[in-house]
Amino acid sequence: MNYKKIGKILGKIMIMEGILMFAPLLVSLIYRETARNVLAFVIPALVLVGIGFLLQIPKSQRETLYQKEGFALVAVSWIVMSLFGAIPFVINREIPNYINACFEIMSGFTTTGASILEDVTLLSHSSLFWRSFSHWIGGMGILVFILIFIPESKEGSSMHLLRAESPGPQVGKLVSKMKVTTRILYLIYAGLTVLEIVLLMLDKPVAGYEKDKYFFSILTAFGSAGTGGFGMMPGSMELMNPYSQYVIAVFLLLFGCNFTIYYLLLIGKIKHVLKSEELRTYFGLVFVAVLVVFLSVYNNLSAMPQISSGEEAFRHSLFQVASLISTTGFSTTDFNVWPSVAQTVLILLMFTGAMAGSTAGGMKLSRIVIAFKGMYVNVRKTINPRYVPKTKFEGKVLEEKTTNSVLAFITLYVFILMFTVLVLSFDPINQQAVTVTSDAGVYTVQHGFFSNFSAALACISNIGPGFEAVGPYASYVAFSPLSKIVLMLTMLVGRLEILPVLILFTPKTYRKS
Amino acid sequence: MNYKKIGKILGKIMIMEGILMFAPLLVSLIYRETARNVLAFVIPALVLVGIGFLLQIPKSQRETLYQKEGFALVAVSWIVMSLFGAIPFVINREIPNYINACFEIMSGFTTTGASILEDVTLLSHSSLFWRSFSHWIGGMGILVFILIFIPESKEGSSMHLLRAESPGPQVGKLVSKMKVTTRILYLIYAGLTVLEIVLLMLDKPVAGYEKDKYFFSILTAFGSAGTGGFGMMPGSMELMNPYSQYVIAVFLLLFGCNFTIYYLLLIGKIKHVLKSEELRTYFGLVFVAVLVVFLSVYNNLSAMPQISSGEEAFRHSLFQVASLISTTGFSTTDFNVWPSVAQTVLILLMFTGAMAGSTAGGMKLSRIVIAFKGMYVNVRKTINPRYVPKTKFEGKVLEEKTTNSVLAFITLYVFILMFTVLVLSFDPINQQAVTVTSDAGVYTVQHGFFSNFSAALACISNIGPGFEAVGPYASYVAFSPLSKIVLMLTMLVGRLEILPVLILFTPKTYRKS
Repeated sequence: MNYKKIGKILGKIMIMEGILMFAPLLVSLIYRETARNVLAFVIPALVLVGIGFLLQIPKSQRETLYQKEGFALVAVSWIVMSLFGAIPFVINREIPNYINACFEIMSGFTTTGASILEDVTLLSHSSLFWRSFSHWIGGMGILVFILIFIPESKEGSSMHLLRAESPGPQVGKLVSKMKVTTRILYLIYAGLTVLEIVLLMLDKPVAGYEKDKYFFSILTAFGSAGTGGFGMMPGSMELMNPYSQYVIAVFLLLFGCNFTIYYLLLIGKIKHVLKSEELRTYFGLVFVAVLVVFLSVYNNLSAMPQISSGEEAFRHSLFQVASLISTTGFSTTDFNVWPSVAQTVLILLMFTGAMAGSTAGGMKLSRIVIAFKGMYVNVRKTINPRYVPKTKFEGKVLEEKTTNSVLAFITLYVFILMFTVLVLSFDPINQQAVTVTSDAGVYTVQHGFFSNFSAALACISNIGPGFEAVGPYASYVAFSPLSKIVLMLTMLVGRLEILPVLILFTPKTYRKS
Repeated sequence: MNYKKIGKILGKIMIMEGILMFAPLLVSLIYRETARNVLAFVIPALVLVGIGFLLQIPKSQRETLYQKEGFALVAVSWIVMSLFGAIPFVINREIPNYINACFEIMSGFTTTGASILEDVTLLSHSSLFWRSFSHWIGGMGILVFILIFIPESKEGSSMHLLRAESPGPQVGKLVSKMKVTTRILYLIYAGLTVLEIVLLMLDKPVAGYEKDKYFFSILTAFGSAGTGGFGMMPGSMELMNPYSQYVIAVFLLLFGCNFTIYYLLLIGKIKHVLKSEELRTYFGLVFVAVLVVFLSVYNNLSAMPQISSGEEAFRHSLFQVASLISTTGFSTTDFNVWPSVAQTVLILLMFTGAMAGSTAGGMKLSRIVIAFKGMYVNVRKTINPRYVPKTKFEGKVLEEKTTNSVLAFITLYVFILMFTVLVLSFDPINQQAVTVTSDAGVYTVQHGFFSNFSAALACISNIGPGFEAVGPYASYVAFSPLSKIVLMLTMLVGRLEILPVLILFTPKTYRKS
């Protein structure tokens, strides 16, 4: 292992995190918060920059990184970012428990949005900003972000890092230079975020939150862009006006698209875009899901006093489908009390996620499509052993190698999910009654298998809220420290798509080969 | 498609089913049941034999079957067997609804054991016998059974049939001749069944069921041998004496073993047996599962008045683990009210199932082991791209082809499971309250995602009872006809390990290639 080089890049990441903390620091100063709130960001920022510079001193003999080193570095970076990113919440005493603070910021960086906060309105502006900002940073990838600014990084190493951090089965370069590709993607990301902020600012303010109108527009856009899902008002996006709810829903769907699509649109290759199988699958699935969820909710309107009209039923259905397929986790109503059909469709979307190359989590639709095609080839081969598969995906003949790695990914995803459920079942929280207060009223649920299953799924797919005791109006605070640590690792496994985390924890990685 | 040859073999299967119906007919005569009960078996038996002989008339030009024809034939045979096997219940009016009757007997042949009966004591002896006998027939495979008696069948075709019907990723021949192998396996199967019957007969009778002591010993052994799980007293095996419960638990574990193990033991190759990785995994897993479930139950004894001592807690834990890993579904107590840890362990066992080449359902442990090894190879390859895998399974280097087909199987298994859950969510039964009366008392559960999930899992893994609204003390009767049909297909998919059923329903199968 090239520890010195790894240390160097890790150091740069720490310096970058220190610099990024100046943003919430600025917020703290603008809103004239207490000295403690200001120091909450100053102290960790200085520590990060300090350690970061110390790590630059040792000279590494080899400038490049092997694949395993790249993967381990990515996993370690995200863990270090979270360990330091949690410190502000502890210093400003808004999340005094360090494990809770780590959970919150790991949930932020991995764009999960699962929260241990029971009342988000108790947070200061700077804390709210840091939480949502972490979604925005994590959405496109921390290392990818760093790559833009590291001048001397070699193309080879960058590719390893990008491969480890990018969502989806394949990494394509848009243009020949990696760094240019990264810059283009980040520009598109920033552009869409600004557009959403502007559109949200055009809305009339939410009653009771008039002062925070512009501030909340920014935070909401951060949460949507990274498909994170941290809210800033009670009940997530419940209080937002219908106009804003529609705007957010549309942007959630847009951030669930592969960003290459936007690049192709920008350079006028519209035909290429229309041919994208994954894009068609995505919007086809969204259409069917919204339709089914809407019909299921609409047919049960009489049982749900919190939804009073067809328009409301449609808006909530669209919003919830967009929120869960993009693995964001925002909510406008308590889908925990929705009919089984709606719930089951949403759970299936929590598995699939949106497109590869987007900021969304989950397995990614391209993998699902590849798995289906691969299995069809399998059936055809049994029907006719001499059958030569020429099944295509995105215009190219689907190679067996691709299919197999996708099948391995899905199997591993399911195994890790079930393992997490098993660990959560040991939590003393099980069998306990949890009282939920939502727009659907006050009701009691028992923490059981479904709670654990949906919590594990919501974390590995980077969604946030699940069902039952971890529904959209509940929090993760009641879990034991062990459960929280395992859920944090599950979020990381989901965000980095398994391999980097596995490599970090495999002893063989550290042996000389 | 060689329809004439397929028709011929199907005809022989129908004749065989007709002959098999003489067993419950005999039971009906012995217990001096009504003429209706006797006719319930005479009529379908005659019809089966009649159609069976008619199908022998056309002469087929090709004597052998292609792989796809073998697979489609196996799937069709099981469906036809069930469609006719359901008729007795309709004629004797004990299950007047034909879909319910089909569900019951499909559940029997596939050794699932999911029942639509709310009170099993209302059945006549002949019906009880036919139900449990179907487990015994289905356990080893219907076609395999037929193969023993078909003199002219070609080795090639038999292999296709056996491959389609045998549980597990590979089919091995014990001796060079297929038919001899099949006979040896069936002899072992019959021998173990007889041994269990004898051991159960040695017990003192269950209070209130003194008259049926021997009869119930036979039925219980049928249910264990096929790892089916139909009971004949209220509360499955709850009323059995502890001695019988231990005997059954041990035999469930034995029937979860690959039958090749017994053959190797018989010919004295004990070293070969001890080296079997799958066997070691099996008993290791059973040991850990019993330990964890026992501790989980024992630590909650105070909350469970129905379990009064450590011995009882151990017995129920052993029994439930044996019952669910062997995918039988017998129960001695209401595990629906057990702590989360115990429940989650049992759910995981419902996924894995027992050994390949046994009568158990589920994914099979060898597949789980192969998947883990395959994924380990994957990680090693990422750590060191020049790594040459020499990972072994059962002494042979694990081929990539094997790993990939296993990963495809697991993915497909999970997809079909989730699809079934989705279909079940449309059932009007959802959100309804279900009252359960068990040894743990009377309580109400709401039919929801967990009920559907466990019902789908219990059917695809051929277990029978699930959790919540389909727990061990509940029945499947309240599901809609659509749900029942889908669950029947799911059972078949699980029993035949997916491909035969997929091939039957793929239009390409019927086109000339």
